[in-house]
Amino acid sequence: SEKLFLISGPCVIEDELTMMKTAEMLKEISERLHIPVIFKSSYQKDNRSSLKYYIGPRIEKGLEMLAKIKKEFGFPLLSDVHYPEQVPMAAEVLDVLQIPAYLCMQTDLIVAIAKTQKVINIKHGQFLAPENMAKPAQKAIDSGNDQIILTERGYTFGYNDLVVDPRSFYHLNQIGFPVVFDITHSIRKYGIPSADPKGGAREFLPTIARAGVAAGVDGVFIETHPEPAKALCDAASQMCVYDLEEFLKPLIEIHELEVKYREKTLALA
Amino acid sequence: SEKLFLISGPCVIEDELTMMKTAEMLKEISERLHIPVIFKSSYQKDNRSSLKYYIGPRIEKGLEMLAKIKKEFGFPLLSDVHYPEQVPMAAEVLDVLQIPAYLCMQTDLIVAIAKTQKVINIKHGQFLAPENMAKPAQKAIDSGNDQIILTERGYTFGYNDLVVDPRSFYHLNQIGFPVVFDITHSIRKYGIPSADPKGGAREFLPTIARAGVAAGVDGVFIETHPEPAKALCDAASQMCVYDLEEFLKPLIEIHELEVKYREKTLALA
Amino acid sequence: SEKLFLISGPCVIEDELTMMKTAEMLKEISERLHIPVIFKSSYQKDNRSSLKYYIGPRIEKGLEMLAKIKKEFGFPLLSDVHYPEQVPMAAEVLDVLQIPAYLCMQTDLIVAIAKTQKVINIKHGQFLAPENMAKPAQKAIDSGNDQIILTERGYTFGYNDLVVDPRSFYHLNQIGFPVVFDITHSIRKYGIPSADPKGGAREFLPTIARAGVAAGVDGVFIETHPEPAKALCDAASQMCVYDLEEFLKPLIEIHELEVKYREKTLALA
Amino acid sequence: SEKLFLISGPCVIEDELTMMKTAEMLKEISERLHIPVIFKSSYQKDNRSSLKYYIGPRIEKGLEMLAKIKKEFGFPLLSDVHYPEQVPMAAEVLDVLQIPAYLCMQTDLIVAIAKTQKVINIKHGQFLAPENMAKPAQKAIDSGNDQIILTERGYTFGYNDLVVDPRSFYHLNQIGFPVVFDITHSIRKYGIPSADPKGGAREFLPTIARAGVAAGVDGVFIETHPEPAKALCDAASQMCVYDLEEFLKPLIEIHELEVKYREKTLALA
Repeated sequence: SEKLFLISGPCVIEDELTMMKTAEMLKEISERLHIPVIFKSSYQKDNRSSLKYYIGPRIEKGLEMLAKIKKEFGFPLLSDVHYPEQVPMAAEVLDVLQIPAYLCMQTDLIVAIAKTQKVINIKHGQFLAPENMAKPAQKAIDSGNDQIILTERGYTFGYNDLVVDPRSFYHLNQIGFPVVFDITHSIRKYGIPSADPKGGAREFLPTIARAGVAAGVDGVFIETHPEPAKALCDAASQMCVYDLEEFLKPLIEIHELEVKYREKTLALA
Repeated sequence: SEKLFLISGPCVIEDELTMMKTAEMLKEISERLHIPVIFKSSYQKDNRSSLKYYIGPRIEKGLEMLAKIKKEFGFPLLSDVHYPEQVPMAAEVLDVLQIPAYLCMQTDLIVAIAKTQKVINIKHGQFLAPENMAKPAQKAIDSGNDQIILTERGYTFGYNDLVVDPRSFYHLNQIGFPVVFDITHSIRKYGIPSADPKGGAREFLPTIARAGVAAGVDGVFIETHPEPAKALCDAASQMCVYDLEEFLKPLIEIHELEVKYREKTLALA
Repeated sequence: SEKLFLISGPCVIEDELTMMKTAEMLKEISERLHIPVIFKSSYQKDNRSSLKYYIGPRIEKGLEMLAKIKKEFGFPLLSDVHYPEQVPMAAEVLDVLQIPAYLCMQTDLIVAIAKTQKVINIKHGQFLAPENMAKPAQKAIDSGNDQIILTERGYTFGYNDLVVDPRSFYHLNQIGFPVVFDITHSIRKYGIPSADPKGGAREFLPTIARAGVAAGVDGVFIETHPEPAKALCDAASQMCVYDLEEFLKPLIEIHELEVKYREKTLALA
Repeated sequence: SEKLFLISGPCVIEDELTMMKTAEMLKEISERLHIPVIFKSSYQKDNRSSLKYYIGPRIEKGLEMLAKIKKEFGFPLLSDVHYPEQVPMAAEVLDVLQIPAYLCMQTDLIVAIAKTQKVINIKHGQFLAPENMAKPAQKAIDSGNDQIILTERGYTFGYNDLVVDPRSFYHLNQIGFPVVFDITHSIRKYGIPSADPKGGAREFLPTIARAGVAAGVDGVFIETHPEPAKALCDAASQMCVYDLEEFLKPLIEIHELEVKYREKTLALA
């Protein structure tokens, strides 16, 4: 539909109270702002920078928790899948299987996920020119599944910095699938632990969100947590779920405006 | 004011007919869309990539033409100044003296322009982190002139490419002067002559314009020409002045929306 | 040892004749130039940009071929491993298990490989600041294996381009493990199929090789093939194995010179 | 000649004692290492980031000091020229007129300098693809002067960082004029005052110097000062003149090796 949708939830699956508090607030926001929500949380973070960091409950316990949330709040579910052997179990519970940005070119993983006939969210690799995201998408299509979402999440810009290039949204839209903007990961400062507030440049959130939505998206991806400072992963970049509603309002209006002019622009182009 | 303003006109001063046709159309657009216009055209292009390329009528004849346009259409005038010895003559005719992006750090030039007490438009150098644009601005202030505009025009991104980073608008706004987005120069493809259509990636114009305006600007800078393909400079990136009106409509609406939320965001930040 | 070593072989395992021709020539070069060689070829390419492209014989047949080469020429063997479930079988045949650049942060994969107690070659992700390569190395150490090689292969530089930053070699050397420079992948032009000659900027090979070796490495990684134009992968960037000897000579001399001054520099630093 | 030459001296002209001490040491090094030296110091720094910072004695007093040094030590002299009106006076004293990197595309300045028939050192703009340095060079040739030096000094790499791309040396050499590597400016950290030690990443000096020389140069440009910490400009990046001799030794040897193989490589390419 032309409505902006939201992918949101804690970065990684934590204790049940944290998960339920977040889901509850997302449910309220979804109803008040009439914005469809896909609940997102990782059962496993496979690219943390140290073995000492929390990586989540792993697939079995993680999917259990997500299933509970779906049962209680009715959200469709999304989580990232890292290895082909995780795919069968993940596809039993998840509605959307996400390919992490670093893995966006891994053929065996894409093919395994595509064959589940579930929706695939492919994150734009920070090293891949945006127009080349047509290639992993084509691998999924060639494996019989064209239920694809493409998610922009910032591109490598010098060391330890990401830039959100408005042209990425042009290219991703040209590929022809729904486009999502992962706002919170785009402000992450690599090289600084995500538990350190300096590990995320929050001051940019409103600016890049509005710019990205105005560039043309179908959904936004915002990791949220009841108390980000205490989050077990990406504390520096997750949004407090209680700030989300105000944050979304301008995005919803900008989206409506952008959709209104989108047809005219395509004609012009 | 909170109204979006427009800096526009042919990249370089050409024959009178071309100049008057453009000014005439800008006048109509200004009145129909209630958008204030500053007329822009360079009396001299000092950074063309070959001595064989047209550089404009130079300062005397150029300022004569601009004065005629001001007299006929009442536009305030803007042109870029390259050397301190050009400043006195330029300040007699121009309302806004522009410092080209490559020269944004040249002290003698900034000081000379600041001392004219005219408005200074400092283009963001493609090599300077956006927050560092506070430095040339401070040089102007320290020379007794705080009538400053800061213009984003794309930042160096690998070879022969520019990226418009939404965070630039955040930083430029933080410096505290009106912020303008130079949309047409941001799509220029260096390394390819600007007479070659491939020298400008026009397909990105609507996307980057909307993203930039949503990120927070006070004005937009769009070089326009009655027949860009025949333009004597930047043929590949100037906009046809007869396409400008449709192009501006979504920007004006996005700007109004962004200004509406701007206060709330500043409070949040 | 202070001798420069070489990791070389066809990008992906092809027909036996091609493999044996390459190995034979590498053996001759190894003996004439007294340069130790690790034979490299991929049993599977998991990140090709289309399902239509050749990905190799996969693990079983691939390891058989490599075992044959080891038996015939006595080379230690290296190949890249993409998924944890491939590790046990790979570790039976390979002397060095390589983690591809895109996967350098994948925890489960690093831990599985580390536990085999074989040498691990971690390719520097094109999205990771070089000093952060200490993190995947630490994951291996924390899993009980410090037999690590770190390989530089170019860093993301705008779209579809890689830059070899001499500072990377400084950072990788600081981490404290042998450093290798993957010269041939550093000239790859993403976005252009590797079968297309324009898909590799060969003209830069001598220049970047000498610069990288002078910056301080212990080994070089050069994919070689008897007839690169006919190679089934990376045809645009593999070196003809018959040109390799002349290519290596200046590198060996520069390396000796660099090692001579290395101690003094470390003292100075 | 095939000998490595050196452009060196304090960043900006300071008190006579400092200048003479530096010149004296450079003379000793020149004789001991048989390396030709061009003495470099700026009579004016026109791009400092604040009016409060020292900019040098300006052209008249500055050229007087340089003339004294030439008289006493016999060095050819180099200084940067910022505006066409400075050219006649500068050309009376200087042997090499340098165009600063930011100004490398300014036509009036290049033409004015070219017409003096003195040697022109054009610094590679941090925003210009290296192959495009053929364009300012061609402007000088078209103005009747082909005594050109092209100087690499690092390219824009994200915000507040420069990368020395070995491919730049390939491109600059292809243009066909002597190539110099400005080592000390390449480690400058913009955004941090150059009086702050953190304003220069000195740890990289040996690595990038060796890499650059191995990539193929004719000369190196190293700003030196008797007590860099007290230098009135670029304190963070100037080298102590008393460390210079040891620093140069490996560069001279690498250069000899590179020149030895240069002909063969050109033939191969």
